[in-house]
Amino acid sequence: MTAKANRLQHVQEYYFSHKLREVRQLKAEGKAIINIGIGSPDLDPPISVSRAMVNTIEQNHIHGYQSYQGLPEFRDAISKFYLRKYDVTLNPKNEILPLMGSKEGIMHISMAFLNTGDQVLIPNPGYPTYTSVTNLLEAKPVYYDLNDENNWYPDLEALSKTDLSKVKLMWINYPHMPTGKNATKKLYEDLVVFAKKYQILLINDNPYSFILNNNPLSILSVKGAKEVALELNSLSKTFNMAGWRVGMLLGSALNINTVLQVKSNMDSGMFYGIQQGAIAALQTDDSWFRNLNSIYEKRRKIAWEIADSLHCTYDKKASGLFVWAKLPKGKNAEQMADNLLYDYDVFLAPGTVFGSNGEGYIRISLCVTEEVLNDVLHRILKDKN
Amino acid sequence: MTAKANRLQHVQEYYFSHKLREVRQLKAEGKAIINIGIGSPDLDPPISVSRAMVNTIEQNHIHGYQSYQGLPEFRDAISKFYLRKYDVTLNPKNEILPLMGSKEGIMHISMAFLNTGDQVLIPNPGYPTYTSVTNLLEAKPVYYDLNDENNWYPDLEALSKTDLSKVKLMWINYPHMPTGKNATKKLYEDLVVFAKKYQILLINDNPYSFILNNNPLSILSVKGAKEVALELNSLSKTFNMAGWRVGMLLGSALNINTVLQVKSNMDSGMFYGIQQGAIAALQTDDSWFRNLNSIYEKRRKIAWEIADSLHCTYDKKASGLFVWAKLPKGKNAEQMADNLLYDYDVFLAPGTVFGSNGEGYIRISLCVTEEVLNDVLHRILKDKN
Repeated sequence: MTAKANRLQHVQEYYFSHKLREVRQLKAEGKAIINIGIGSPDLDPPISVSRAMVNTIEQNHIHGYQSYQGLPEFRDAISKFYLRKYDVTLNPKNEILPLMGSKEGIMHISMAFLNTGDQVLIPNPGYPTYTSVTNLLEAKPVYYDLNDENNWYPDLEALSKTDLSKVKLMWINYPHMPTGKNATKKLYEDLVVFAKKYQILLINDNPYSFILNNNPLSILSVKGAKEVALELNSLSKTFNMAGWRVGMLLGSALNINTVLQVKSNMDSGMFYGIQQGAIAALQTDDSWFRNLNSIYEKRRKIAWEIADSLHCTYDKKASGLFVWAKLPKGKNAEQMADNLLYDYDVFLAPGTVFGSNGEGYIRISLCVTEEVLNDVLHRILKDKN
Repeated sequence: MTAKANRLQHVQEYYFSHKLREVRQLKAEGKAIINIGIGSPDLDPPISVSRAMVNTIEQNHIHGYQSYQGLPEFRDAISKFYLRKYDVTLNPKNEILPLMGSKEGIMHISMAFLNTGDQVLIPNPGYPTYTSVTNLLEAKPVYYDLNDENNWYPDLEALSKTDLSKVKLMWINYPHMPTGKNATKKLYEDLVVFAKKYQILLINDNPYSFILNNNPLSILSVKGAKEVALELNSLSKTFNMAGWRVGMLLGSALNINTVLQVKSNMDSGMFYGIQQGAIAALQTDDSWFRNLNSIYEKRRKIAWEIADSLHCTYDKKASGLFVWAKLPKGKNAEQMADNLLYDYDVFLAPGTVFGSNGEGYIRISLCVTEEVLNDVLHRILKDKN
């Protein structure tokens, strides 16, 4: 038997992975479990996306290897989208790298810049993949606290007082998952100053900009940001294309080229039809965003009622695909999640999935229909009355 | 400026990358360059593949995240294909891992098993990605010689006399690229014995089985092979789907699960429509292979004439997408490639792209039409007469 690499010693089974196994088991036993735990959009992409795939798929000579950098017209479409939506100018020749989903970008960036033992600033709470990729590369996750009192923003003053000499990368993610907190231009400006001072490469993971948010912001809109910041973005949430695996990395030509050195050695360009679908998505007109958000608004209203029924509080200005609900004082997140699962057959995410600062919170997904959310609400209310 | 990771110090620009830049420059100057250097299939996939994509793309609810392990029916189709074509039994539940191309599998496997400083046996000549991925993980490539005198097979006796104590993985690749040499069952048996003796994990990269070859062989057909061997396979060459990015890893449940631990932390499952296309491809009937190979046979005949015109010799029993032609004694591979480029406007690969043992050889691709190959032939003959 060949031993695993040491890097796998740190990798734990994801909470969702073993919990969803339990959910499947409960379903097999006949329980009608409702899953409001996962952030996978249930809605369909713009119809133009599927049409673009169909229109191109039966052409000849579109089945061969594609460039690592993607089609020039795809990079053009990304560049125009960033200008139109974020007021950010990107050179499509060398400041844009299409990715097969932004998740793979987390690995590519980490491989491009991290040596064994380098430190990486990671938000707590935050997306667990920042930690697992850092561990896979035998670099060291250093968590920075986010909490309600500080608006779910990093306390840069407190961070400045710590030893940052070994920190190479800092992951930020606004609109923030799981809390839904939006950045401000001021926050991004402060982060860029901080990164310059301590020579840290910032990466803003920005897939939630367009969900329940009227003011999409890119960190690259800050003057001088490209010198110290990269941004990841994705079509998964914006255009309901999670399964298509289309993401992108934006930043300086120098940094993009460094990441490309990694990527070109481990995969190949994405399928032509997928790139054509992505171009169609990026060209969708603004009514798309209004329609999408009107659906999520209706769902969120019910999710808020669910939170109310559990005596939780929440931020009505939060963005993104989730309601991040604060439990009544003294309640434990995983305990609450288990209660909901065993008492009401409802599966959702305890805040601790995203780090210790998620204690006392639960996360409700908006990726299910109003009908399903109403069903959850009624299960809880019925029991209370 | 954020410094690159040390791992990128070893990564060199690929020969093709800078040479193709020169080719583009020559084209821009008005030269009618013919490219017979690259192994990207120019033919189209079975029509059923595109139809499967079209049939599924406009369905609802196929746009979300897919499982890391792929659809059960996709793994079933792979299992049936392996049984039908290689007489190898694989449990679709846990002995098959779909990949977005077998190239990414080289990285996933290496990450799953290699620690810094571990040694990796790599064929010389061979596919350059084995080396670049090994370097990216700061493991150490140890080349084993392949040459004409030893049938392009590893000399396991000679290898046994070297210090193998730090060797963790061994890459093999039959039908071999660039030479087109086929394995025998005996070779695979010897390799399995060797791997067991020295506790090395063998990986057979097997994408060329069905090209100009009537006897596809899998290393997993050797009794007990699963204990020490993994196999990579791909639809790129077999079904002309290089751009679709569909590959697969086959082996023991234990090893597959180790690789899955890496993969699940760095990407997500492949697009539903692509999986449906892949299923359709795997179900294609045997006339596909006969038709495909009758095209390649006609092309190869002309490629042989090109080799003759350059006074080269070659193995008429070779498989795969290339003719591997031995230059007349004393001729240098890169010099010959440059002569062909500058004198005849023909771009092809010097054998040294694949390692030092490629000196004295050139590689002619069969991924162009008979017309194009005839054009190359006439350019050379015209000059000689």
